[in-house]
Amino acid sequence: MTGSLTDRRARLLGPGVPTFYAAPVHIVRGAGVWLWDADGRRYLDAYNNVPHVGHAHPKVVAAVSGQLATLNTHSRYLHDAILDYAERLTARMGHGLSQVLYVCTGSEANDVALRMAQAATGQTGLIATDAAYHGNTALVSAVTASRTPIGGRPGLARLVPAPDRPGAATPEGFAAGVRAAVAALQAEGHGVAAMILCPYLANEGFPDLPAGFFGPAAAAVRAAGGLVIADEVQPGFGRLGSHLWAHDRAGLVPDIVTLGKPMGNGYPVAAVVAGTGPMAAFRDRFRYFSTFGASPVAAAAALATLEVLEEEGLQARAAATGRMLRERLAALVPPWRATVRGTGLFLGLAFPDAAAARAIEDGLRAEGVLTGRTGRDDAVLKIRPPMPFDAGHADTLAAALARVLARTPPPS
Amino acid sequence: MTGSLTDRRARLLGPGVPTFYAAPVHIVRGAGVWLWDADGRRYLDAYNNVPHVGHAHPKVVAAVSGQLATLNTHSRYLHDAILDYAERLTARMGHGLSQVLYVCTGSEANDVALRMAQAATGQTGLIATDAAYHGNTALVSAVTASRTPIGGRPGLARLVPAPDRPGAATPEGFAAGVRAAVAALQAEGHGVAAMILCPYLANEGFPDLPAGFFGPAAAAVRAAGGLVIADEVQPGFGRLGSHLWAHDRAGLVPDIVTLGKPMGNGYPVAAVVAGTGPMAAFRDRFRYFSTFGASPVAAAAALATLEVLEEEGLQARAAATGRMLRERLAALVPPWRATVRGTGLFLGLAFPDAAAARAIEDGLRAEGVLTGRTGRDDAVLKIRPPMPFDAGHADTLAAALARVLARTPPPS
Repeated sequence: MTGSLTDRRARLLGPGVPTFYAAPVHIVRGAGVWLWDADGRRYLDAYNNVPHVGHAHPKVVAAVSGQLATLNTHSRYLHDAILDYAERLTARMGHGLSQVLYVCTGSEANDVALRMAQAATGQTGLIATDAAYHGNTALVSAVTASRTPIGGRPGLARLVPAPDRPGAATPEGFAAGVRAAVAALQAEGHGVAAMILCPYLANEGFPDLPAGFFGPAAAAVRAAGGLVIADEVQPGFGRLGSHLWAHDRAGLVPDIVTLGKPMGNGYPVAAVVAGTGPMAAFRDRFRYFSTFGASPVAAAAALATLEVLEEEGLQARAAATGRMLRERLAALVPPWRATVRGTGLFLGLAFPDAAAARAIEDGLRAEGVLTGRTGRDDAVLKIRPPMPFDAGHADTLAAALARVLARTPPPS
Repeated sequence: MTGSLTDRRARLLGPGVPTFYAAPVHIVRGAGVWLWDADGRRYLDAYNNVPHVGHAHPKVVAAVSGQLATLNTHSRYLHDAILDYAERLTARMGHGLSQVLYVCTGSEANDVALRMAQAATGQTGLIATDAAYHGNTALVSAVTASRTPIGGRPGLARLVPAPDRPGAATPEGFAAGVRAAVAALQAEGHGVAAMILCPYLANEGFPDLPAGFFGPAAAAVRAAGGLVIADEVQPGFGRLGSHLWAHDRAGLVPDIVTLGKPMGNGYPVAAVVAGTGPMAAFRDRFRYFSTFGASPVAAAAALATLEVLEEEGLQARAAATGRMLRERLAALVPPWRATVRGTGLFLGLAFPDAAAARAIEDGLRAEGVLTGRTGRDDAVLKIRPPMPFDAGHADTLAAALARVLARTPPPS
C-alpha cells in the first residue's frame, strides 16, 4: 500500500516531494494529539503545530463546517467576522500593531510584509539570518537560506550569521553581522527596508538566547531607517508558554508581525499585522486583494482556534508541560552528548550531527512517536506538538525516547 | 450597520481595502446562485466564479466538513486523496500535462509557474500583456499590468500590447509585440523563460478572438527557448461551455497550466500542472513544500467540486445558458453603443467608457443582481456567475438589465 503510494506520488507529483522518516507514514485520521495510520496504528504527534488546538478539534470543525454551509465569499462584500477577528487579535498584540491584512499562507504573509517595509521606508534592502526559512514565494526565497532563489539571490537580500556562527552568539556579535549587512546594502544603493526574524529562531535550531538578544541588531536596522518584521508563523499563539508571542518573550518590538500555520488550526489562513503607517503605505502603494484570504470561513477558523486556545487554557498548559518535559529530556540525553533547548511546547534536542538526530527521529517513529528535525544541519530533534499535549503525553514521549536511546549506541 | 462595518474596516484593515459598488453589500448567506444580505434581501449572483458549482453546495460542504473532522495535515505524510485528484485532473488535460504541484492560491500557482519556466529553460525573461492580472505576490506583480511592483517593474518582465491596442488585434499584430519583447529580453541578457497568458484574456476584457490567435506569438516564444504558461484561474473548469479549458478553446498548447479560484469551490486550493520536464526542473532546483497546499482537505474540496461539475452536467449547461443569455443581452444594449462578448458563463458588455459600465453595474445591484467590471479601463461589465446559473436566472438578469437600461439615459 505505502509502496504503491510512493510510486503514485513520483508519477503524479514529480520527483523529490519531501516525506518524513526513512519509512514514510500513511496517516488517515487525527484527533487531539493522536494520529492513526492506514493499518490502524496510533502515533503520538509530537511534531505538528498546524493543528494548534489539536487535530480535528470539534469546535473548530463545527465553526468551519457551519460557515462553509452558510457563506464562503470574499472581502469585496462587507462581513463582520474578519473584523471581529482583527479586533480580538490586535487587542492581544500591543506595540501599536492595530491593523490586519489577511492572506492564505505564511509565505504570502512574508511576501507582503517585506514589500510593506519597502513601501513604508522607500528602501529595498532585506536582512535575514543565514539559516532562516521564511517561505516559498520568489521574494521570500531571497531571505531564506535553504532555498536559493531561481536566478540567484538578488543583491537586495543579505543573510547575516545566525547565533551558531563564530562570533554571532552574543547580542553585540549578532549585531555586528547586521551592521555589516546594513553598510553593504547602503553602499550598493538599496538601503535597508527590513530585518525579518523568527524571534525564536525556529529554523536556526532555536538556541536558548537571553531576552533582549536582538536589541542591538534591531537598533542598527532602525538607525538606517529600516523596520523589524517578526515572523511568528511557528512560535506564535502561546506555544512558548510564557508569552502569546515570541517577540514579547525575546523583548523585541516589531513594526510588522506575520502569522500563519497555527492561526486557523489547519484552514489556510495567515495574516500581516502592522501599525497604521506601514499598512497605509502598502495599501496605498499596492492595491492588494486576496480572493481567499479574508473569507468568512477563514475568519471562522481563526476565531474558533483563538477561542479554544483561551477557553482550554492551552498557553498555561504549554508552559507547565514544557517545563516538565524539558527536565525529563535533560535527564535522558547526556550520554549522547546532546543538549536540551527551548521552552513551552517548542523543545529541541541538539545532537552532535544530523545522522545522530535522524537515528533518534526514526527510532521514535518506530516507537509510535512523531517528531522532526531542524537547525542549519538538521541536527536538532524538533518537538513541537499540538497544544493539548499534556503531562501524560510528555511521559509517553520520554519513555519512548528512553527506549530508543537504550537500544541505539551513542556516537563514539 | 453597513456604515459601521465600513468604519470598522478602515480602522482594522487600513485604508483602501476594495469593495464592490457605490453602496457596498453586506452579504451573510449564500446558496446556489443566490446571496442574501443582512436585511434578508436576496441577490442573484451573476459575478462569482469561486463558488464554481454554487454557493454552499451540499456535496462540497459535506466532503470538506467530513475530511476536516477526520484529518487535516500535510504532504510530508502519505495520503491518497491528493493523488486521486491529480490523477483525475491530469486525465482531463492532455498535452503531456501529467504532474501536479499543489498550492493555496492562484498567486502562489503563478509564482511557482514563472520560476518553473525559469528553472526549465535556464532563462529568466517573462512576457505578459499590458492589461493582465496574474496575482499579488512580488514576482507575479512583475507580470501584472495593474499592480506596479514595489521597487519598480524589473527588467526581466515585459508587458506586450493586448489585442485592444492599435495593431495588436490580429494574430500577427499580437505576435509582433511578443517578438519585440523577446528581442529586448535577449538583448539585455535575460532570454525568455515564459509567456504567461490567460487564454481567455479575462482581465484584458476578453475580446472575442479566433481560435489560433496566440499561435504566432507562442511560436516566437518557443523559438527563443521559452515556455507558454496558460493561466486558467478564471476561465478553467468548463466555464466557457465548449471546452473544459480555455487554452483548448483558444487552440493554445501550454507547457504549464495554473489553476485557482474555482478549483475547490471556495476552499483555498490551487495548482500548477506541467509535464515531467518542467516539473522535475523546478522540484530539483527548488525544494518546494507547501504546508496547506496538498492537504487531504484541499484534495477533498477539489475532488468534490470536480465530481459535482460532472455529475450535474454544468459545463453543458454553461454552454446552453451562455448562448441564450448572449442573445438576450445582444438585443438589449445597442442603444448604449455597447457590444456583447464572451462565451459560456463568462460574458461581457463592453461599454463606451467605465462610467457607463459603472452606472449599469450599480443599477443592477439596486435591482438585486450582482455583476462586476473588467478590462483595461473597467469598461466591460463582467457576467461570470456560479455554474448552476440556468435559463431562468438568465431571464432574471436580462429583465433586470432591461429595467436598468430603460431608466438610465444612454451617453449622448
